[in-house]
Amino acid sequence: MTRGELKAGYRLACQTEVLGDATVFVPEESRIEVRKIQVWGFERRVTLEPAVKKFYVVLPKPCLSDVQADWERLVDQLRKKFGLKTLTTGVEVLERLPRVVRRGEWAVTATVWNAEKIVDVEAGDVSSESYGLAVDVGTSKIVVYLVDLNSGDTVAVGAIENPQIMYGEDVISRITFAFQDSRKLKSLQRILVRGINAALEEACKKAAVSRRNVYEAVFVGNTAMHHFFFGIDATYLAVSPYTPAVSEALNVKAEKIGLKINPNANIHALPVLGGFVGPDAVADILSSRIHRARKKQLLLDIGTNTEVVLGDREGLVCCSCASGPAFEGVHIKHGVKAVSGAIEKVRINPSSLKVEYETIGGEKPLGICGTGIIDAVAEMFKARIIDEYGRFNKNAKAPCIKEENGEKQLVIAGKNETATGKEIVVTQADINEIQLAKAAVYTGCAILMKKENVHPEDLDQVFIAGAFGSHINSENAVFLGLVPDVPLRKIKFLGNTAVTGAKAALISTKIRREAEEIVKKTRYVELGAQPEFQSEFSKALSIPHRDLARFPTVKKWMEDFKQC
Amino acid sequence: MTRGELKAGYRLACQTEVLGDATVFVPEESRIEVRKIQVWGFERRVTLEPAVKKFYVVLPKPCLSDVQADWERLVDQLRKKFGLKTLTTGVEVLERLPRVVRRGEWAVTATVWNAEKIVDVEAGDVSSESYGLAVDVGTSKIVVYLVDLNSGDTVAVGAIENPQIMYGEDVISRITFAFQDSRKLKSLQRILVRGINAALEEACKKAAVSRRNVYEAVFVGNTAMHHFFFGIDATYLAVSPYTPAVSEALNVKAEKIGLKINPNANIHALPVLGGFVGPDAVADILSSRIHRARKKQLLLDIGTNTEVVLGDREGLVCCSCASGPAFEGVHIKHGVKAVSGAIEKVRINPSSLKVEYETIGGEKPLGICGTGIIDAVAEMFKARIIDEYGRFNKNAKAPCIKEENGEKQLVIAGKNETATGKEIVVTQADINEIQLAKAAVYTGCAILMKKENVHPEDLDQVFIAGAFGSHINSENAVFLGLVPDVPLRKIKFLGNTAVTGAKAALISTKIRREAEEIVKKTRYVELGAQPEFQSEFSKALSIPHRDLARFPTVKKWMEDFKQC
Repeated sequence: MTRGELKAGYRLACQTEVLGDATVFVPEESRIEVRKIQVWGFERRVTLEPAVKKFYVVLPKPCLSDVQADWERLVDQLRKKFGLKTLTTGVEVLERLPRVVRRGEWAVTATVWNAEKIVDVEAGDVSSESYGLAVDVGTSKIVVYLVDLNSGDTVAVGAIENPQIMYGEDVISRITFAFQDSRKLKSLQRILVRGINAALEEACKKAAVSRRNVYEAVFVGNTAMHHFFFGIDATYLAVSPYTPAVSEALNVKAEKIGLKINPNANIHALPVLGGFVGPDAVADILSSRIHRARKKQLLLDIGTNTEVVLGDREGLVCCSCASGPAFEGVHIKHGVKAVSGAIEKVRINPSSLKVEYETIGGEKPLGICGTGIIDAVAEMFKARIIDEYGRFNKNAKAPCIKEENGEKQLVIAGKNETATGKEIVVTQADINEIQLAKAAVYTGCAILMKKENVHPEDLDQVFIAGAFGSHINSENAVFLGLVPDVPLRKIKFLGNTAVTGAKAALISTKIRREAEEIVKKTRYVELGAQPEFQSEFSKALSIPHRDLARFPTVKKWMEDFKQC
Repeated sequence: MTRGELKAGYRLACQTEVLGDATVFVPEESRIEVRKIQVWGFERRVTLEPAVKKFYVVLPKPCLSDVQADWERLVDQLRKKFGLKTLTTGVEVLERLPRVVRRGEWAVTATVWNAEKIVDVEAGDVSSESYGLAVDVGTSKIVVYLVDLNSGDTVAVGAIENPQIMYGEDVISRITFAFQDSRKLKSLQRILVRGINAALEEACKKAAVSRRNVYEAVFVGNTAMHHFFFGIDATYLAVSPYTPAVSEALNVKAEKIGLKINPNANIHALPVLGGFVGPDAVADILSSRIHRARKKQLLLDIGTNTEVVLGDREGLVCCSCASGPAFEGVHIKHGVKAVSGAIEKVRINPSSLKVEYETIGGEKPLGICGTGIIDAVAEMFKARIIDEYGRFNKNAKAPCIKEENGEKQLVIAGKNETATGKEIVVTQADINEIQLAKAAVYTGCAILMKKENVHPEDLDQVFIAGAFGSHINSENAVFLGLVPDVPLRKIKFLGNTAVTGAKAALISTKIRREAEEIVKKTRYVELGAQPEFQSEFSKALSIPHRDLARFPTVKKWMEDFKQC
């Protein structure tokens, strides 16, 4: 917060004590409704084969010459009619069974999980009401898809900021918080589950679906979120050698976790790949299908933690990069999430230094989101407003460059244009944040590629996933040095593939088997344990990179630029 | 309660309102400590093969070049060392796993259920501490055996009256109570579980065993107790056609029910045979091994509900008789349970009409228990004090026969002999209670035998189970008409075979498979649905039976008696 802002009466809510009656004005850019969180992701085609299916059966009525128990009566009929052979259930179903079968006058609908377990029995024919959830828990946001399991269609979406944020922006601060005692771990779990419940309630309300008819949830998230969600001690994720508590896919009852869907519903968590590469990366791989690719592909899921996966159907390597929340607009002066009104594209005319931008939804700008800030920094570099170290050129002069408190900044939108009535600028600090973030991501790519002896020219595809903007400008991603220098046509933006991968696993048990295959063929690389990490990271701080030989396209452009 | 008693200041506690300060004197015979409940039962020889086993393993310590997750590390080692191939677990174990393996410095003990599920992980080698429970819930009493799963030895016993008794002595009144609303069902469950917890806490305390080291419980009881215990709606057990909610064996987590042992422990309930023949009858069969017999055998488990089983290895039939609690001393003027000081044997010299008795433990008598009252009524019949209708003979005169309020009664022990300082007598009402009870039991036997076309001479063995006395006088059981007229050497008293059958299933999974075999080969007969029930029952009210041809031994004795 600048002195000017302070003078103008701005205060940080988290630093302000209210001493008496007060009228609070919340600036427009802080009034982001959570439902605007970007939730789209590329969906691969999947044959509908959900774990949960509903079966309607009419049972023969018992009489004194046929006193078979209610449960065996139901199971017999399900075997005869649908070939379901070895069914089990829990006491929650048995408790109510006698009343339900009689209320339905011996016509009932059984909800069966995995062709083995009856999770619900309802009176009459209600087989059309069968829903599931795909849940993606990011370090900073939660997205749920409510899916009709009879059609595979997403009927509603819910989204919310991860409420754990009050215990720290990044995973390590939350683990440190939870480490103090096990009650704190439980409170982190509780608050997370409450957040997911809010998102799923929103989705159920939108689609007018009863939560009781939601019979399965597929969970993805990074390893820390995974552990927090299940209440598993996450302490050792933050301590060398950073081992997770469990890697395999989990199946846990909703009731056990407090997820407000059918209490007997199964929560399926996709498997964990490593200390910081969780089920979200498995979902990304499932959506992008790298594990079936014939040629080498690279996948980046950019977020507060960025997961990088490299490989093909023969095998994959993966790692996690602590890229921080800059790409999600956090720690960026006018940063916002990829919501309506966010500046998502920026162009700077290299000659006139005139700035052009586009906002999401074409609305008046209220801030700048991940793709916008990537564009802005790359364009500033291309326009020579900043140098390869990210510093403002002293000589750069233009209407878009102004100074405040002795520091230069780039004005992207003037007061009159914005929804906030304030300029939207990019500061030196913003640029440095982006450099740190992109260096973290590129270092992950570089180390994996070196380990696998893969060169940029070997890459068939580079997939960029993440919810930081609708469309990344591939050229600028290369110019910034965020991704390896590959032909632009090879770079594809996939959006939130974590949630779509979770959805694929929700509607198809075959996809869950693919996830197991992925675990078997993926090797986890602990970046912090790599001796070259520090030197790689520091070289990657430059724009695009200190070693220009790795970015021949940019190098050539710079040489051309000098000549003209 | 007689007028004399009322005059002497006696009051029924349940009928008395306390209006001010009062001193209450509880008569000695009412001061029965619960731990005196008879808990012995015949135990068949069983090879130790419990579902729960503990495995001590030392795991390789993780390092940066070996970052396998804790769970997979444990599972790998259990597979390598013990050949355990497909292990699963619940979040309760995963939650704590990271801390436990580190506290034990990578040396841990895993508790495995059924070679498939890890229910606990503890630091270090604690494989010697592995316990299980056999739980028998009768309508009126609860008995638990605490068993060392490493040796198969019963290390302590706990017993308590079934606290549900406050909602009715018999099963039907409790069902009627629960029928009113589901909260009442839950409260019946809660109170029952609380009672079992008290019994198991007693046993654990006696043996100095931590409840956390109790990893499995095998439950037996009649079908109503089974349903109540699991919180299953029992309403329709009391409504024609009296179908149970479930028949197959159940496996339910202790935590789910509130049983205070390891929360992850499994509760295994043996299967249900019919609306009123529950897992207790399966346990009786398991203990007595009728299901493996080459010749026809008959089994009676006498209690508030009496289960009757007839058959051999080719097949079994079973039924339940509403015999009421008379054999357990309830509704008998001086009736007591089979505790120390209970009169368990009675002899009446047919010439002198002198009464002799024996008490449990040889102590001063404080009442009369089931076997004592059976003896007393049979001996009165043999001594011609009562006739075949159970009525006192007007002509019978002896010091042991006195009249009170115009009604005759038999004095078994005089004031000076008893622990209570009061006479112990058998009244006309007592005799009628016993007639009703024995008629109910015999009717069950008679109907099953008729259905199977089995005659007394076809019976190889008659087993009498139940906790109503240590040793039944077989001759008197026949004379009373409680059991079919077979040679006395064929009648065997087995005690509480419900709890010993549960114990057999606890320490051997092979026995659980035998239980499944029993379900398959047993046919349940609903006595109330048999057209001959009423006539059979009314004929069985006589002593020994209206149709003397069915009791040739008694008939011959009567003829001999007349001649002499």
